[in-house]
Amino acid sequence: MNVPPPRLTFVLGGARSGKSRYAENLVMDCAPPWVYVATAEAHDSEMAARIAAHRNRRDGRWRTVEAPLDLASAIAAHGSKGQAVLIDCLTLWLSNVMLDGRDLIAEQQRLITALGNADGPVVVVSNEVGFGIVPDNALAREFRDAQGRLNMQVAAIADRAVLIAAGLPLILK
Amino acid sequence: MNVPPPRLTFVLGGARSGKSRYAENLVMDCAPPWVYVATAEAHDSEMAARIAAHRNRRDGRWRTVEAPLDLASAIAAHGSKGQAVLIDCLTLWLSNVMLDGRDLIAEQQRLITALGNADGPVVVVSNEVGFGIVPDNALAREFRDAQGRLNMQVAAIADRAVLIAAGLPLILK
Amino acid sequence: MNVPPPRLTFVLGGARSGKSRYAENLVMDCAPPWVYVATAEAHDSEMAARIAAHRNRRDGRWRTVEAPLDLASAIAAHGSKGQAVLIDCLTLWLSNVMLDGRDLIAEQQRLITALGNADGPVVVVSNEVGFGIVPDNALAREFRDAQGRLNMQVAAIADRAVLIAAGLPLILK
Repeated sequence: MNVPPPRLTFVLGGARSGKSRYAENLVMDCAPPWVYVATAEAHDSEMAARIAAHRNRRDGRWRTVEAPLDLASAIAAHGSKGQAVLIDCLTLWLSNVMLDGRDLIAEQQRLITALGNADGPVVVVSNEVGFGIVPDNALAREFRDAQGRLNMQVAAIADRAVLIAAGLPLILK
Repeated sequence: MNVPPPRLTFVLGGARSGKSRYAENLVMDCAPPWVYVATAEAHDSEMAARIAAHRNRRDGRWRTVEAPLDLASAIAAHGSKGQAVLIDCLTLWLSNVMLDGRDLIAEQQRLITALGNADGPVVVVSNEVGFGIVPDNALAREFRDAQGRLNMQVAAIADRAVLIAAGLPLILK
Repeated sequence: MNVPPPRLTFVLGGARSGKSRYAENLVMDCAPPWVYVATAEAHDSEMAARIAAHRNRRDGRWRTVEAPLDLASAIAAHGSKGQAVLIDCLTLWLSNVMLDGRDLIAEQQRLITALGNADGPVVVVSNEVGFGIVPDNALAREFRDAQGRLNMQVAAIADRAVLIAAGLPLILK
């Protein structure tokens, strides 16, 4: 067993970059049980297959908590019990919040406050989506901007932050 | 006040990655006044809002110079006066040059020559746009290629280069 | 002449990031002749121009082997002769395999086995395509997922892995 992660770790990565597996391994360096806070909702079969693949990787030492929208409350409820928490991921949460028409700024602030108050260890997974060409449609641009702002906010309060590419970490802080 | 940046610093980053703020902080490690060379043009309300948000961050110690197309001349005029210069950003400049139908290779060469001749400190901001899927339309592919070539040219002559993700730097050189 | 590369090096980068040139330079730190394993096929004039530009950079010390689909056999034939091999690139190979309707999982496994069996030095170039917004169309998403999985597999067995941005390397391992 390696050294457990610090209070708050931010794992940023591309699609299919191995960021979830990297984050799971960080959490599993802590003593079980572990809390998996899932933000995914199976809107279609593609997403359902992805969720199932992630779930099949996790054994009985994991407890799954569903938090597609009210992530702040899930963090408040589980982030200070001395058990390691994995939040996977902020990108789906952000998408859910925007599709639900909620106040984005207020929800982001609630989330950052909850993360700041957690005793941890908490490991947060998110997507980097800003390294491509400017998207054609306005909603995609709005999402990209919101995701970028959110990633900066979480990275700023994290004790450790990494960027994952091809399953391997680059140390941001 | 931290150590001032070297002659030429290249700050590369994604959309909403905090690259402008990071670059501003580098410049503000020099003695004021500072020159802000703006390449943005407000073609629509979305862009106007972005420009205003950036401008509101800068106080009276900044002098703003508009250079949407003739960036080389702006660098020649301001890059050797012993005052720190921030160029934000090459991506909008490149877009302006292409939309204006100018000779891209010649304009890029003029820019690189001007940057090479500046005494600095000069900090140049640009977007990394090549880490996504191949764009559908030919113009986006052409832009992506031109941006990639330009980024390589500037990085090659820079004394320091960083890639920004979530507001934090990865050291390229 | 610098230190030659290890048995297997993975060079990951964006479009127009300088990854091919970086990889060529690694190979040229070995004694010639060098084998260039090309996966590109000129389906259109844009691709033909790109292939020609790459070929014009290589002199007579390079031997070119075309392997648009059967990359595993090319590695088996050339990867253990004591001569350095450059594979450029996995992204075009993956695209060829998908367009040809082959069994992707089986082909990826054959490739990984061949890379694992090579004595090297072998340098493999691939694109990072997962740092942008989710693509609109399902085929692009499928490609992005397959590329991400392949990149993780190659990085896992590589002795060294780098991410290239603006022509400069970030060390992944």
